[in-house]
Amino acid sequence: MNFCSQCGEAVRLSIPEGDNLPRHVCESCGTIHYQNPKLVIGCIAEWQGKVLLCRRSIAPRYGLWTLPAGFMENGETTRQAALRETLEEACARIDLGDPFSLVNIPHINQVHLFYRARLRDTGFAAGLETLETALFAEQAIPWPELAFQSVTLCLRAYFADRKAGHFVLHEDELPAANKKA
Amino acid sequence: MNFCSQCGEAVRLSIPEGDNLPRHVCESCGTIHYQNPKLVIGCIAEWQGKVLLCRRSIAPRYGLWTLPAGFMENGETTRQAALRETLEEACARIDLGDPFSLVNIPHINQVHLFYRARLRDTGFAAGLETLETALFAEQAIPWPELAFQSVTLCLRAYFADRKAGHFVLHEDELPAANKKA
Repeated sequence: MNFCSQCGEAVRLSIPEGDNLPRHVCESCGTIHYQNPKLVIGCIAEWQGKVLLCRRSIAPRYGLWTLPAGFMENGETTRQAALRETLEEACARIDLGDPFSLVNIPHINQVHLFYRARLRDTGFAAGLETLETALFAEQAIPWPELAFQSVTLCLRAYFADRKAGHFVLHEDELPAANKKA
Repeated sequence: MNFCSQCGEAVRLSIPEGDNLPRHVCESCGTIHYQNPKLVIGCIAEWQGKVLLCRRSIAPRYGLWTLPAGFMENGETTRQAALRETLEEACARIDLGDPFSLVNIPHINQVHLFYRARLRDTGFAAGLETLETALFAEQAIPWPELAFQSVTLCLRAYFADRKAGHFVLHEDELPAANKKA
């Protein structure tokens, strides 16, 4: 950030009074520009024991498989974000269950949240950011070709909980050393 | 947003190619400025059956009671945010438990997340944004003087679950009509 989005003048990093972190502050109009983590919301949607994955048609991780998920938008709820992303990326209609996996990725300022879900039908298809969509049984999951570590964690926890017969909310943190965030 | 924070030129609301929502786009350098919901993280910290509340010394809701909570910062995890906010607002050291209450407030682009927690000791005190801190038994909670509706929801769910003998993750949404978000 170089310029104030309010007035267009240059901003400077400084610690505002009563604060303890450097912020981008506009010395012309006084606006303090806070920057905060973003939420990425998605779901693990099941159909007859298989889960829905999408193969990415965009960067990053072009060609790799992921759960339907994306940045939460202003004006929506986390559940609406999960429904919207699943519709956009996989053209799939789902019934949402409980929050299942919360993954913190502090080095890229993201929090990922995946819901459990059930597909309403098999009328899914590749959306604009997807090369193909498919249902995978646990033993067919393309583990080495998953796009994001948060997706790997979520899927592992999902199959473990399903085997155990009950689902709980999982909370994880990905360290900076791990590039495959 | 009026100006590009990258290059300082004027931005314009338009729908980027492949997108379906209007964004602030810089026609000079091409930067797309996304705006996304912010996470507010806090905790409900217990000591011998009572919970810790803070009376606000800042706007909004000056003088009203709240749970220790605040905006999550870049570079931290949700758990770190809960610990930091509790230390900043109530000078309190806690042991964090599970995520307990997730409250969506889409009309102000916020998601609130409260953890359960236990105070390590009674060495709490008012932080910079707090007039006073105190422990409240359920029957002493100042319900009409709570600062935010999300805090009310969280506390109600907490006491109900505690009575029932088990805690689950609660998920709520506050409608726009409700000004006391």
